[in-house]
Amino acid sequence: MNAANRSTAEGILFTDQYQLTMAQLYYRLGLQEKEVQFEHYFREYPDYGLHKAGYCVNAGLEWLLDWMQETSFRPEDIDYLRTQRTRSGGRVFADDFLAWLAGNGNFNCLSMQAVLEGRVVHPNVPITVVRGPLAMAQILETALLNQLNYQILIATKAARIREIGRAQLMLEFGLRRGHDRGANAGARAALIGGADYTSNVGVSHLLGLPPKGTHAHSMVQLFIAMGQTELDAFRAYAELYPDECLLLVDTVNTLESGVPNAIKVFEELRRKGYKPVGVRLDSGDLAFLSIQVARLLNEAGFPDTAIVLSNNLDELVIWQIVTQISQEAPRYGVDADALVNRLVYGVGTRLITSWGDSALGGVYKLVAVHHENQWRPAIKISESIVKTPNPGDKRSWRVYDRRGKATADLIALADENPALADPLLLRHPTEQAKQRALPRAEISRIEPLLAEVLRQGERLEPSPTLDSMRRRRQADVECLDPGVRRIMNPHIYHVSLSQELWNLKQRLIDEAAL
Amino acid sequence: MNAANRSTAEGILFTDQYQLTMAQLYYRLGLQEKEVQFEHYFREYPDYGLHKAGYCVNAGLEWLLDWMQETSFRPEDIDYLRTQRTRSGGRVFADDFLAWLAGNGNFNCLSMQAVLEGRVVHPNVPITVVRGPLAMAQILETALLNQLNYQILIATKAARIREIGRAQLMLEFGLRRGHDRGANAGARAALIGGADYTSNVGVSHLLGLPPKGTHAHSMVQLFIAMGQTELDAFRAYAELYPDECLLLVDTVNTLESGVPNAIKVFEELRRKGYKPVGVRLDSGDLAFLSIQVARLLNEAGFPDTAIVLSNNLDELVIWQIVTQISQEAPRYGVDADALVNRLVYGVGTRLITSWGDSALGGVYKLVAVHHENQWRPAIKISESIVKTPNPGDKRSWRVYDRRGKATADLIALADENPALADPLLLRHPTEQAKQRALPRAEISRIEPLLAEVLRQGERLEPSPTLDSMRRRRQADVECLDPGVRRIMNPHIYHVSLSQELWNLKQRLIDEAAL
Repeated sequence: MNAANRSTAEGILFTDQYQLTMAQLYYRLGLQEKEVQFEHYFREYPDYGLHKAGYCVNAGLEWLLDWMQETSFRPEDIDYLRTQRTRSGGRVFADDFLAWLAGNGNFNCLSMQAVLEGRVVHPNVPITVVRGPLAMAQILETALLNQLNYQILIATKAARIREIGRAQLMLEFGLRRGHDRGANAGARAALIGGADYTSNVGVSHLLGLPPKGTHAHSMVQLFIAMGQTELDAFRAYAELYPDECLLLVDTVNTLESGVPNAIKVFEELRRKGYKPVGVRLDSGDLAFLSIQVARLLNEAGFPDTAIVLSNNLDELVIWQIVTQISQEAPRYGVDADALVNRLVYGVGTRLITSWGDSALGGVYKLVAVHHENQWRPAIKISESIVKTPNPGDKRSWRVYDRRGKATADLIALADENPALADPLLLRHPTEQAKQRALPRAEISRIEPLLAEVLRQGERLEPSPTLDSMRRRRQADVECLDPGVRRIMNPHIYHVSLSQELWNLKQRLIDEAAL
Repeated sequence: MNAANRSTAEGILFTDQYQLTMAQLYYRLGLQEKEVQFEHYFREYPDYGLHKAGYCVNAGLEWLLDWMQETSFRPEDIDYLRTQRTRSGGRVFADDFLAWLAGNGNFNCLSMQAVLEGRVVHPNVPITVVRGPLAMAQILETALLNQLNYQILIATKAARIREIGRAQLMLEFGLRRGHDRGANAGARAALIGGADYTSNVGVSHLLGLPPKGTHAHSMVQLFIAMGQTELDAFRAYAELYPDECLLLVDTVNTLESGVPNAIKVFEELRRKGYKPVGVRLDSGDLAFLSIQVARLLNEAGFPDTAIVLSNNLDELVIWQIVTQISQEAPRYGVDADALVNRLVYGVGTRLITSWGDSALGGVYKLVAVHHENQWRPAIKISESIVKTPNPGDKRSWRVYDRRGKATADLIALADENPALADPLLLRHPTEQAKQRALPRAEISRIEPLLAEVLRQGERLEPSPTLDSMRRRRQADVECLDPGVRRIMNPHIYHVSLSQELWNLKQRLIDEAAL
């Protein structure tokens, strides 16, 4: 796709057709300016098959807001819509609607409350609340879901790998396996969720990080094809990058060629006063090999050089490697803790595509309509109560227990103040019988989750730095119960409704059944 | 991400850092212009857990070529690289290299042979062969893999759904669950691989298709919140789009409200001389509901209106629905075949993210270096013979048997002509004992797989139309044995090496072991 086509396909036409046909319907009925509220939330944590997440990490808002502020119906977009034809050859979009779109087809009319990026988020709790005129709030749906769902998915996966990787360095290496240009958003989300650095040059540049990397097999292959050796390749690399000497040792044979050659080059570097960075293993039994490599490096007097592992790593693979090392390393005279502490995880495919569950089922639902001077709750009954959105103009809160741990997220109507309730009643969102009454004395803090980020197109929060998003994530993760944090079969975090919201939802369901 | 940042992050810096550090090394050694060949291929079909693909569909080339022709190191990219620092504070990239990059950092020096888009492709057979000066051929790696791997992945998934969906209409609905902007490439690949239309407006526009869609639950919710009814919403929609009336019937209750209301509106349309298009089911037991909905529509005299199904469809879910319909429909007086023939599949999440296996492990490997006036084969031994690339300057061929079915892909050295061999010897790529000798009389056709698409930056093939890519896919799929086409446990298609290539590979492996 060339640049001209990209501005077409990534601008306002980056949407589903039905958003536009619905907008025209609203225009035809005179409802295009009707004030409404949509909510973005997800219903279930990502489930990677054997293991389901216990929490998600929010990401994506900043780039969505950038997009919203730049995007509108351009004359050429309107021209294109004018050419669309129905089955019988008539125009899909009429001139008066297109004229309205040309004048009003931008997002400066919208206001937004949102959970800030980096924060921990849970199912059914609104992450983004969009308020404004119906037509444009509706048209925003597709782009909002596309951008937020993916970044939350990847930030969450990164947080899980970070959880298992402890304090070890974690590098995002997934650009070549990401989904086309989406890989940039994935790299950003990975950095928010837990990766320390990325190999992605453009995204590193934008976020102010140094990009990381080693070299490819092709470098060694090239030397060999020209009649030279792996050692020659390593030497050439070390001479040019004496400060950054990280060598990929598995092109020929890791233990018999790669590591011995790397050690020779490291010794030469040391004699010149440089500190070699380490080696990278990209194939084979990474647990076994890292023990053997550590042993060889230790024997050669390089006990601190890093051992970078890559090749389809994810939280389970890393867990398996660390477990195997702790069992087997002593047998080879290698200190298991010291070895784990020198590991660096290069995580590619399985992070950037959220391998195992490659989509977050985030939805964007109409929850309220301003009609006859008040917010009227909107509901969709659907086939199951679990999928019925929580109706109405609402607020959400995080409730912390006496230990300072987050004990529940509470969704309440806008005019409720849960801080005043004693006890605070927490209703299970769907099961009638499940509820909890929390005495005020058990609660250390009740915190509103949403911040106002956009008022009629004007941004109210400064652009977050990567550091600030990471600090939010760390703080929120530390407030989770360890049972919620664990990567297998986590405790289910409580997401609760207030009694008033529960009553409203029940009443609307009953009315719809009439 | 705003537009200025997008041109930074989606231009030449859409790469891994190590491509740039390796390029500088090659420059430092005077090798930046050395003629080399890289090959892009994948090692394994996508494996969705329970079921593995038996073939892939090629896609992505055209948009990659667009990108290559527009992309180069801009002055601001060079300025950024000048700011990169090593651990000790020195410059990562020196001025002489950056000056060379500023003058030569584009892809006009490269030539490319490729399998055309839409064609069926198999493991280890080169899909794209890049030839040209080392530095820029190396720098291309990340962007090439990123763009081709994803589109092949999605075209393949679409072809599988098409296989199960038979002649039924298949709509791509995945934009909101795709991976950020990558969703556009996904929509294109889905259309090449098997989808008839997409809801994605921008991509439809670029490819000259009408975008498809219905309406959202929010339209019905809005009417209800304002004190009106689902029927009012349907009527309003039908009045505006009498030609395109496709109604989403599951906002309140599919069988008790949605379908009866849709039928009322369809009757009104019929009286006005319009033909209603159909209904969409987006939740619940789609097999059971579609039988019941068909029964109601039949009874009301609408035996031809479409029933669009959506909600996490993929090839297995569709298979299950069709199977259940064939078993249960007769019990409700519904003709199973007639019902299946009126189904339309709206496929979203599981198509656009290739749910179950969200990445194609395509690689880009150095296979030959032009050194001392000849192509020297390059090899990487790695940990297993399966992952060892096929070395050297090669050509690939598809061999058809007497029935006209493709019976094997053959990889041979560039100077071999398999059309002259009788019998044609096909060696298993890794297993010594496995080989087939095919008498010439058994072969109806031997076809070269690669076409020259780029010569020193100049494109040699016209931009393919969507139709031409789809025709290639259809023709190639029809040439597959039914056992290879089936979606569960397919026959393994033969990918073979010529005897000469086998000998060369074995010799290089033996030499490397010395």
